[in-house]
Amino acid sequence: MEKFEVKAYGTPSAKAPLKQLNIERREATSKDVEIDILYCGVCHSDLHTARNDWGGSVYPAVPGHEIVGRVTKVGTDVTKFKVGDLAAVGCMVDSCRECPSCRQDLEQYCVPGFTGTYNGKDKHLNMQTFGGYSEKVVVDEHFVLRVPENLDPAAAAPLLCAGITTWSPLRHWKVGKDSKVAVVGLGGLGHMAIKLAKALGAHVTLFSRSPGKEQDAIELGADQVIISTDDSQMLTAKGKFDLIIDTVPYVHDVNHYTPTLNINGTIVLVGYLGPLEPMLNTVPMILGRKSVAGSVIGGIAETQEMLDFCGEHGIVSEIEMINMQDINEAYERMLKSDVRYRFVIDMASLKN
Amino acid sequence: MEKFEVKAYGTPSAKAPLKQLNIERREATSKDVEIDILYCGVCHSDLHTARNDWGGSVYPAVPGHEIVGRVTKVGTDVTKFKVGDLAAVGCMVDSCRECPSCRQDLEQYCVPGFTGTYNGKDKHLNMQTFGGYSEKVVVDEHFVLRVPENLDPAAAAPLLCAGITTWSPLRHWKVGKDSKVAVVGLGGLGHMAIKLAKALGAHVTLFSRSPGKEQDAIELGADQVIISTDDSQMLTAKGKFDLIIDTVPYVHDVNHYTPTLNINGTIVLVGYLGPLEPMLNTVPMILGRKSVAGSVIGGIAETQEMLDFCGEHGIVSEIEMINMQDINEAYERMLKSDVRYRFVIDMASLKN
Repeated sequence: MEKFEVKAYGTPSAKAPLKQLNIERREATSKDVEIDILYCGVCHSDLHTARNDWGGSVYPAVPGHEIVGRVTKVGTDVTKFKVGDLAAVGCMVDSCRECPSCRQDLEQYCVPGFTGTYNGKDKHLNMQTFGGYSEKVVVDEHFVLRVPENLDPAAAAPLLCAGITTWSPLRHWKVGKDSKVAVVGLGGLGHMAIKLAKALGAHVTLFSRSPGKEQDAIELGADQVIISTDDSQMLTAKGKFDLIIDTVPYVHDVNHYTPTLNINGTIVLVGYLGPLEPMLNTVPMILGRKSVAGSVIGGIAETQEMLDFCGEHGIVSEIEMINMQDINEAYERMLKSDVRYRFVIDMASLKN
Repeated sequence: MEKFEVKAYGTPSAKAPLKQLNIERREATSKDVEIDILYCGVCHSDLHTARNDWGGSVYPAVPGHEIVGRVTKVGTDVTKFKVGDLAAVGCMVDSCRECPSCRQDLEQYCVPGFTGTYNGKDKHLNMQTFGGYSEKVVVDEHFVLRVPENLDPAAAAPLLCAGITTWSPLRHWKVGKDSKVAVVGLGGLGHMAIKLAKALGAHVTLFSRSPGKEQDAIELGADQVIISTDDSQMLTAKGKFDLIIDTVPYVHDVNHYTPTLNINGTIVLVGYLGPLEPMLNTVPMILGRKSVAGSVIGGIAETQEMLDFCGEHGIVSEIEMINMQDINEAYERMLKSDVRYRFVIDMASLKN
């Protein structure tokens, strides 16, 4: 298979900082779209993969799965894109296309497993996939999204992970005009959850552990902020929410929130992979038919639906633009939650 | 308010065995139905309340919430029942009737709390309620069920708790012809879950920790039995079930079962109230949009629907009939799971 070299930013090992390196991309096959990357959002998963926090990282590792760019080449069988289109790639670049999940447009739950945009297994080159911290990316058109031209392409980049990760549960649990939604955690995912739930017509509450986020939350679209460490405020929220989107990426006490679910309500975890500590108490779940669920990103059709919805409603992420060379400092700031609310890399900086 | 005395079986304290005693019932009001109790099923909750295992028991305690009998008196405003009808009472004898749950026929999730058939707070007499281990019971007609005359009334009694507790999640999670359902635990609830799921058209699997229950399970309607301690059998069940009804009444490892859920699958806990130990692992939940949920009994309309369905399909519980005087021995046998699958008291024995 023909290949070509592109500049990228990645790391040769879990302990090393990210630096410039060269990687190979396949020449576009008949079904592929080649994209010149303009912007790439910075997700917590990027950092965890670079540092092998979850195990299984293959090096060199090139993170980045919130990719927006311009189409520079299309294969002969490509029908959805033409050269010059604004296009995007999210967390997946392939899946089996045959399993029951794939047949239901749920590629994120592909039974043999989807191919991650980075640290996945590229079927064409038989090596690990490399992400969006690079000049170009080549992806099967099924996994390439159209980006509404009215959106700021830099601020649209985080929609590809932070956006779809919160959109998918909002849609799956049928949030609409009469819904009461709460969001736990005001970061990259949380701020998108507020914007999207509000645009879907829901009454939106932010749970915050400490005062000080009220103004930000209200400006993002929240109707109210509940200080979750204030027992009297939590008591007033008892039995209130149809859906809670819990974006907290570290272990935390979910029992704190289950009593605030309405009958038939669900708290959906989208940020934390691991054992729930303290132990989950079944009492409020059984006595109110409440659910604790999980959800990961979203399917390709659903991602397009989300992008189109954002185009109609003028929704993008709140971002802080950085140069590629600033990525290691940005990771340190992310670890301190010192970003409102998503770093996006101006990929022009890599070409300099 | 006018009252009358009836013979009952109950306990004066958590440590004492049950014995015969007298209790007072209210004279039927205009909305009440008076029922001569023929049979009363024996639920684990009876034992836990008699012994104050959950705290909050009020003494004397008279258990019993799987009640079938004949109507002996009806109030002037009663429209659904007449003297001589076969009637039943389950776990609830009242609720607020005004909250959003009650207005949706979800009295089991009444926001101020439903009135339990025993150890509840009787609004009319301003004292604790007494259950079905007694000669008669007087209940508002809204909480009285019709029992199909083609069913064995003794074997129908457990439908009022074991039946509805498993029916409600089967219906809420829309089990039908194409569903794959698994049941954890083969006791009073588990054996009803198998019968009801099968009659709804589902493919039904029993999870059993040890061999020896295959024949019983198949006879009850299960399509297969999986030995949950056999890793190879569990691996073949990976991703298989749309709904798992977990009837186990003590703490156990739910993580064992979540990988066997299909995408969008739910494991619903109906037996165990308390903290889940070991800790619930969110990984299979997030990577397959799986839910852990709880459910308690069912609404009154749903209970009637279940009884009518059982009438149409000739479904009753497998029972072992006992006399009222055998109740303390029956409790000991229940603690050893030595019953196939529900004790039912022949209440004629109390009159002797």
